[in-house]
Amino acid sequence: MLSGIDHVGVVVDDIDAAIALYQDVLSMPLVHRETLTEQGVDAALLDVGEGHVELITPLDPGSSVGRFLAKRGNGLHHVAYRVPDVERALDELAAAGVRLIDQTPRTGIRGWRVAFLHPTATGGVLTEIVEPT
Amino acid sequence: MLSGIDHVGVVVDDIDAAIALYQDVLSMPLVHRETLTEQGVDAALLDVGEGHVELITPLDPGSSVGRFLAKRGNGLHHVAYRVPDVERALDELAAAGVRLIDQTPRTGIRGWRVAFLHPTATGGVLTEIVEPT
Repeated sequence: MLSGIDHVGVVVDDIDAAIALYQDVLSMPLVHRETLTEQGVDAALLDVGEGHVELITPLDPGSSVGRFLAKRGNGLHHVAYRVPDVERALDELAAAGVRLIDQTPRTGIRGWRVAFLHPTATGGVLTEIVEPT
Repeated sequence: MLSGIDHVGVVVDDIDAAIALYQDVLSMPLVHRETLTEQGVDAALLDVGEGHVELITPLDPGSSVGRFLAKRGNGLHHVAYRVPDVERALDELAAAGVRLIDQTPRTGIRGWRVAFLHPTATGGVLTEIVEPT
């Protein structure tokens, strides 16, 4: 069902400094920047092999990512796995009894269809599935 | 320098329950189990595409992973990137001013040569580099 790790999501308080770090020091090319209004974040994607690092910073301290940053500081936020069909994967996961945050796909970075599973269903890890187009 | 995401490391309090979850519900095959005495953890590797999920549980509450679990609970612990040569990567990272936890490679799961970078050098993310053999 899951065909590989697509990206890790990293919450940072200063996205420009984090981009510089991942780009200049870890040699990951910056390939995309976007404001995701629905999720209340500024985001950047950097390539590493077939996968990515997604840097995210909250636009609003009251958002989910804003509260994460206030509580935990900079650090790993979620992991995303590639799936061939996010709707079908959600159906299969729901049938297996997995608790979902998104019952139906939402639009994520780059317009990809994505959905989040609940951390309680995945050993405390906020888990995203993405269907790259 | 980094050729892709090798795995995400997930700290759990009950490794058997977590293995069952990732194996049975998320359909990731369990490919390896090992006690890493030096790091004070029991670990399991499950495949997802070219990458893995590494589940780890502390054997000693006073270990680094034990303190992480007590403070944060179950969740994402580190991300590991594949490199062709861990020693050369450490030299390059040190030359770029990156703060390292391991100045020289240590032996990780499956006997792989691995090294950890300091979270302050990577936007708050505990980062491992691994040279699969």
